[in-house]
Amino acid sequence: MSISVAILGASGYVGGELLRLLLAHPKITVTQVTSRSHLGEYVYQVHPNLRKRTNLKFSDATQLQAVDVLFAAMPHGEFQKEIEHYAGLAEYIIDLSADFRLRSASEYERWYGAPHAAPAWLPRFVYGLPEFHREEIRQARYVSGVGCNATATNLALLPILRAGWLEPEQTVIAEVKVGSSEAGAEGNIGSHHAERANVVRTYSAFGHRHTAEIIQECGLQNVVLTLTSVDLVRGAMATVHLNLPDQIKTRDLWQAYRALAHENPFLRVVKEARGIHRVPDPKVLAGSNYADIGFEYDERSGHLVALCAIDNLVKGAAGTAVQCLNLMMGWEESLGLEFPGLHPA
Amino acid sequence: MSISVAILGASGYVGGELLRLLLAHPKITVTQVTSRSHLGEYVYQVHPNLRKRTNLKFSDATQLQAVDVLFAAMPHGEFQKEIEHYAGLAEYIIDLSADFRLRSASEYERWYGAPHAAPAWLPRFVYGLPEFHREEIRQARYVSGVGCNATATNLALLPILRAGWLEPEQTVIAEVKVGSSEAGAEGNIGSHHAERANVVRTYSAFGHRHTAEIIQECGLQNVVLTLTSVDLVRGAMATVHLNLPDQIKTRDLWQAYRALAHENPFLRVVKEARGIHRVPDPKVLAGSNYADIGFEYDERSGHLVALCAIDNLVKGAAGTAVQCLNLMMGWEESLGLEFPGLHPA
Amino acid sequence: MSISVAILGASGYVGGELLRLLLAHPKITVTQVTSRSHLGEYVYQVHPNLRKRTNLKFSDATQLQAVDVLFAAMPHGEFQKEIEHYAGLAEYIIDLSADFRLRSASEYERWYGAPHAAPAWLPRFVYGLPEFHREEIRQARYVSGVGCNATATNLALLPILRAGWLEPEQTVIAEVKVGSSEAGAEGNIGSHHAERANVVRTYSAFGHRHTAEIIQECGLQNVVLTLTSVDLVRGAMATVHLNLPDQIKTRDLWQAYRALAHENPFLRVVKEARGIHRVPDPKVLAGSNYADIGFEYDERSGHLVALCAIDNLVKGAAGTAVQCLNLMMGWEESLGLEFPGLHPA
Amino acid sequence: MSISVAILGASGYVGGELLRLLLAHPKITVTQVTSRSHLGEYVYQVHPNLRKRTNLKFSDATQLQAVDVLFAAMPHGEFQKEIEHYAGLAEYIIDLSADFRLRSASEYERWYGAPHAAPAWLPRFVYGLPEFHREEIRQARYVSGVGCNATATNLALLPILRAGWLEPEQTVIAEVKVGSSEAGAEGNIGSHHAERANVVRTYSAFGHRHTAEIIQECGLQNVVLTLTSVDLVRGAMATVHLNLPDQIKTRDLWQAYRALAHENPFLRVVKEARGIHRVPDPKVLAGSNYADIGFEYDERSGHLVALCAIDNLVKGAAGTAVQCLNLMMGWEESLGLEFPGLHPA
Repeated sequence: MSISVAILGASGYVGGELLRLLLAHPKITVTQVTSRSHLGEYVYQVHPNLRKRTNLKFSDATQLQAVDVLFAAMPHGEFQKEIEHYAGLAEYIIDLSADFRLRSASEYERWYGAPHAAPAWLPRFVYGLPEFHREEIRQARYVSGVGCNATATNLALLPILRAGWLEPEQTVIAEVKVGSSEAGAEGNIGSHHAERANVVRTYSAFGHRHTAEIIQECGLQNVVLTLTSVDLVRGAMATVHLNLPDQIKTRDLWQAYRALAHENPFLRVVKEARGIHRVPDPKVLAGSNYADIGFEYDERSGHLVALCAIDNLVKGAAGTAVQCLNLMMGWEESLGLEFPGLHPA
Repeated sequence: MSISVAILGASGYVGGELLRLLLAHPKITVTQVTSRSHLGEYVYQVHPNLRKRTNLKFSDATQLQAVDVLFAAMPHGEFQKEIEHYAGLAEYIIDLSADFRLRSASEYERWYGAPHAAPAWLPRFVYGLPEFHREEIRQARYVSGVGCNATATNLALLPILRAGWLEPEQTVIAEVKVGSSEAGAEGNIGSHHAERANVVRTYSAFGHRHTAEIIQECGLQNVVLTLTSVDLVRGAMATVHLNLPDQIKTRDLWQAYRALAHENPFLRVVKEARGIHRVPDPKVLAGSNYADIGFEYDERSGHLVALCAIDNLVKGAAGTAVQCLNLMMGWEESLGLEFPGLHPA
Repeated sequence: MSISVAILGASGYVGGELLRLLLAHPKITVTQVTSRSHLGEYVYQVHPNLRKRTNLKFSDATQLQAVDVLFAAMPHGEFQKEIEHYAGLAEYIIDLSADFRLRSASEYERWYGAPHAAPAWLPRFVYGLPEFHREEIRQARYVSGVGCNATATNLALLPILRAGWLEPEQTVIAEVKVGSSEAGAEGNIGSHHAERANVVRTYSAFGHRHTAEIIQECGLQNVVLTLTSVDLVRGAMATVHLNLPDQIKTRDLWQAYRALAHENPFLRVVKEARGIHRVPDPKVLAGSNYADIGFEYDERSGHLVALCAIDNLVKGAAGTAVQCLNLMMGWEESLGLEFPGLHPA
Repeated sequence: MSISVAILGASGYVGGELLRLLLAHPKITVTQVTSRSHLGEYVYQVHPNLRKRTNLKFSDATQLQAVDVLFAAMPHGEFQKEIEHYAGLAEYIIDLSADFRLRSASEYERWYGAPHAAPAWLPRFVYGLPEFHREEIRQARYVSGVGCNATATNLALLPILRAGWLEPEQTVIAEVKVGSSEAGAEGNIGSHHAERANVVRTYSAFGHRHTAEIIQECGLQNVVLTLTSVDLVRGAMATVHLNLPDQIKTRDLWQAYRALAHENPFLRVVKEARGIHRVPDPKVLAGSNYADIGFEYDERSGHLVALCAIDNLVKGAAGTAVQCLNLMMGWEESLGLEFPGLHPA
């Protein structure tokens, strides 16, 4: 007995990754996938990994039939305009765009530069990061997706937040290194391989929109989110600098991290004394829903370097959305998300 | 009800990949993994993707307990010396080294430069490529692994072989481009990232040992296997040149390819007229057991370019070994091998 | 005392590389560079390596002033339409597009799919590869550029051609692996880093236009030029398969290669018995005008694998054009082309 | 009229890069290069870019003849033991190891974990970064090399330091992303391409030895130097976070940066409003001695993100050493250092 699912905007990278996960999910039947730019093409012509897995073709979003669950992975700003329409077609909605991530319409306008088209819907959505809102998600009908850079940073900070060591006014500097899939399938002027290969390009020092999700979820006021493109397709690596209150010891941190990893199936602590794999690294996470977290701490100065590695398209987008669905449906949280990543890769 | 499995030599890349697949296999319990260089370490310290998936530690091969199935992934030349011993511990054996791939002891000596230590065992092994020997493997107790470069070439040639168009004496030129994981976890003098990144290094023009497996399996006499290292971790891409007999038309080729893909769950024909993904490419196959095959044909001259892309560690090694196990046990051929690869990657 | 030079189409990759070389050339003053897409911008905004080297801005080709030497690096098909106009502005012209590479108007039409716009000018141009036409270039006023894939192949074959071992009717299979800069600054649908990274994509098995230059320059009839994209920005690596006539020994090949390298300042023989750098590899040639050549030969079968590595933008385009200019002006052939490439890189 | 130069330890990456630069230098003759691991081999067998440029072979350091200038590029800790001996052979010495970079023997011991073998020599050496010590270097006989990560950070901070805005006690967080050539030609356990490709590995959060050079040169007390390996061969990119005193405006920063670039031939300000190349990026600097600097500033909070990109082997090592030699000899500072880097690359 499976539920029916449709994906709006399935020809992009996030939509394609969602489709990969849902096709392998034991309790789901994908009934419809839409695309504007690839209308009528077979899914496997755009996502070649799915050849022999599905004979679905991309259809037109305006022809969408009623389904149990609707995933939306459209460009930012589009889904909010038609939320009323789509809410009539599906009982459950998970929107992976940025449209329903922020709780406040004014914050939305501040960060996205335009008024929200459906502000009344903002409080109906839960921010879709299970490690922050597991119980609310279990009860939710409407769940948002997450920003990948925000997710890497929020999960890096979560052990500190849970332990009560995060002061709202303190400065947090999140240095996030990102792969080229973050630009989406359309890319941007710097996406040409000859320009993008070998880069170490700090393209956004301040003010990236994902900052708003860190402020909202961690209750912070002073967040510097600095993004640097590196030569990688998938992956986001957050190296987060902050100061801890006096008296925190390394053993306290160990305890906080281990407790968190114990409670959350997709969090793992990576902190080894020797070997090649001593710290979190997105390279072993491609395709996986794990977030690997770790830390280095200078007890003397109280300076903490908190680390988190994710696959931006999985834990930073499609995987977390499926994890939310599992919670919403009362299924096991990790269902259909078992791929552990590859070594080497 | 699951069967017990052990892996000899599980800290290498092939062994690690095998472990990833077997841990996820629904009918298998991995009871023991051995390593000489990482004895006593947790598996996840060496294969960081497997953290939270297993608490196995590497043990000593000399302490191996009896199991239902033994996989061996030791350096070439070692397993043959102890085959008698290990055959006493396991009813089924799959050896991924080169030790039991060739049927002829003299051919073994010719290509490997030393007499075989257990020539009487050579005829007891089946060459473990299901697309070539499915029925024999179903009946086998002892199955060899396959060489990755040979596999990419053999599968590129299989449609031609099956169609009866391959003349024993014709020259076949197989240009195979390979990733750095082929060198194994120990690497070689050229494996340093600063030397290996950005290479296009035709390091073996003639005489690579995998040539012997192409000659044996395709019944050929004149095979030029030329290997070029490229900047890639996983993947082998065979571009194979040969001449077809007169009168073969492109539509005959389409028919041969489609029939083969229809009969073999892990073969897919990739030949699109437009889009980005028109030909087989190992980049979408990392972690997957698929072999993507395709061709370009010049009807006028009869020159065929046959293509095959694989992940050298999966379809070129560990995945094919699990596929063999499934056949040997009478299970569904694709059990535990469902991961389709990633896009983008 | 320097000569004045202008570049038509200097915002592309070939034009930019030409500009880098000419700005450093001791006998040249670059007086004008044109671009349609970057009109009015500083050169260093497009080619960031040239910051602090020049304050030139891109100007409009229609405003071109008379100069001593005109380099054209426009999209294929454009320069031929205005050759009469430009020939009135410059005594010497080097056109890096494909417009004047072929001697025969009918061959041009066959390979480029349209009649040539100025067929009378075809015989006035010399094919601009000094290793093939040094003396003619010295006397020439009009010189063409070269195709990068053709150049890698032609230089791989040159020792055999010079030795008289190349039969017109024999089949030559040239497997060329190429970097992403070949697609030009505009790129194509597959140029997005997320799609282009990690590829091994045999995108053209037959019929690439550069084949015509190999046929013309080597006097061959049966050339299979197969192109495979790999993860690399700069570089073309030709692995060329052919059969030599009976009785050729390895020592004969050594003699042919060494003689050629002795006569040509930019040819080097790379064939070492040990170490990391045993064969030609474009990775050490980025920015350099060298072509590294080598070979592997099976005396028994007569099968030769001839190798040539170049930087497609330098020896395969801009560098060779400057080398031609040096010859045309009676200067030392290597003037301004001294950069040897980097190790590691 | 040229001076004679020898290089101790020329088979490593820094030594090889130094040799490339010195062979092209118009006023220098390289008379001897030594290597322990490649004794007797031709230089071009180890550094393949130098084939046809030199027929030097690696000789034994114990056979070193007297020369005008001695460059040492030996493993850290070795040169200090024999400084007396070598000072007898050369009037001028530039030591690229870490042995003579710190002014204080106690600081040396603190950061390097062992007493210095020649503390009396420490004050005789000048720290070899011309942008910090140009006039002292002009007068010096003994000059140290620089740490690459320290150099990227120091040059990022120099505009702020010169402007008098750097408070000794303030916290400076330097996030430096580095390529694989930093590990040296010997590499380390993580250098295997299959492990090192695609990494984003924050391998050192605190306490890297180069921190000492930042503290010393910038007069700081609280420096957090965090190093992250990325998939790149050459390059170090520093993203440095600090707070500026009140009242500093963006226009003040522009003034400080421009003044500095005006005075220093190898500093360039990269800060464009549009296009692909808006910020410093090491990818265009491979082989070049430029340091590209830039900044992003939040006037409201006073948070500055200072950027600096270099080639770790050139501006971060061998190039700066040659720049020092030029100053010591009274030559033009940029002599032999003209290569501007490549675009694309």
